[in-house]
Amino acid sequence: MTPEEILSHIRNVPDFPKEGILFKDITTALKKPQVLQAIIDSLSELVKDIKIDYIAAIESRGFVIGAPLAYKIGAGLVIIRKPGKLPAKVLHEEYSLEYGIDALEMHEDAIEKGKKVLIVDDILATGGTAAASLRLVEKAGGKVVGCLFLMELTALSQNVAISKPIYSLIKC
Amino acid sequence: MTPEEILSHIRNVPDFPKEGILFKDITTALKKPQVLQAIIDSLSELVKDIKIDYIAAIESRGFVIGAPLAYKIGAGLVIIRKPGKLPAKVLHEEYSLEYGIDALEMHEDAIEKGKKVLIVDDILATGGTAAASLRLVEKAGGKVVGCLFLMELTALSQNVAISKPIYSLIKC
Repeated sequence: MTPEEILSHIRNVPDFPKEGILFKDITTALKKPQVLQAIIDSLSELVKDIKIDYIAAIESRGFVIGAPLAYKIGAGLVIIRKPGKLPAKVLHEEYSLEYGIDALEMHEDAIEKGKKVLIVDDILATGGTAAASLRLVEKAGGKVVGCLFLMELTALSQNVAISKPIYSLIKC
Repeated sequence: MTPEEILSHIRNVPDFPKEGILFKDITTALKKPQVLQAIIDSLSELVKDIKIDYIAAIESRGFVIGAPLAYKIGAGLVIIRKPGKLPAKVLHEEYSLEYGIDALEMHEDAIEKGKKVLIVDDILATGGTAAASLRLVEKAGGKVVGCLFLMELTALSQNVAISKPIYSLIKC
C-alpha cells in the first residue's frame, strides 16, 4: 500500500478542535486491519537502517503508532505523557501552544545513558511536542536518532526547530 | 516467559495516584523489548481461538497493549477515548468513580453492526471503564466477544459487572 493509499483512508473533519482547523482523523485508517498493517510496516521500513534501542511514544495517539512499531522492530517502548500521569519520579518539559503553555513528562529512569531513541507521534505540525520530547530524552541521557511521524503537515512544519532527522510517511 | 516472569518486570509504586494505593507501573516492563514481545504474544495466545474483527482499546494505557495486539492478530483497531478527544460524531457513556463520575466516548461509526469486538485495557480493577466500553460497543451495534487485560487485581475485581468472558494474563 502506498502512502497515498494510506492517506485515502484518513478522514478530514472540519472545525475540530476549533473552527477553521481541518483535523486529520486517523481512526478511520486504524480500524481497517490492512491499513493498520501497512502503516506499521511502512514506518518500520522508513527507519530500517537505523539502530534503535527505544521507541519514545508521545501520549496518546503516538502510543497507537509507537507501540506496534516497537513490537515489530524489537525495540523497548518508553511513554511520554501529560503531566501527573506517570507514577514514579519524572522529568518535565514545557512547550508553547498558540495560547499558553503545556508540558510533557517522562520517567527519569526510563532511558539509560547513550541509548538510541526514536521519538514517535502520529502527526508533525509545528513540532512543539516533538521538540519537548527530544529535550526530555536528552535530559535523561538518551541519544535521539530521529523523530518519526505517520503524517507531516507541510504547511505548518516549515519552521520546525528539531536538530535531528525527521522521518514522515505521508506529507500533505 | 511466564506470566509470573512478566509480573516481575512490573514496578510497584506506593501512594499513587493517592495515599494508600500501590500502583502497578507497567512502564518498566514495556521498556524491555523481550518483555514487550512476551506480553503481546502471550495476550494473543489467550484469545487465539476467538474470532475478532476489532480490538477496542481504552485510552490511554489500553492503546499501548491494544495497538500491537491488533497489529499482531490482524484485527482493526478502534479507540475509546476520554470526552472531547475524538473529532467526529461520538457515542458517550458515563461510569462511576469512587467520588463522582467520568465518561468515555467512541466514534458512532467506529464499528459495523454484528462485528466481533475484543475490549482491551492494561488493568482490570473494579471494571467501571470496561463496563462503560462494553456499553459503547453494544450501542454502536458491535458484539463484544470478551474483555482482555494484561493484569487483573483480584482484590478489586470480585464484583465486576461484565456479562462477557474476561481474559487476564496476570492475576495478582
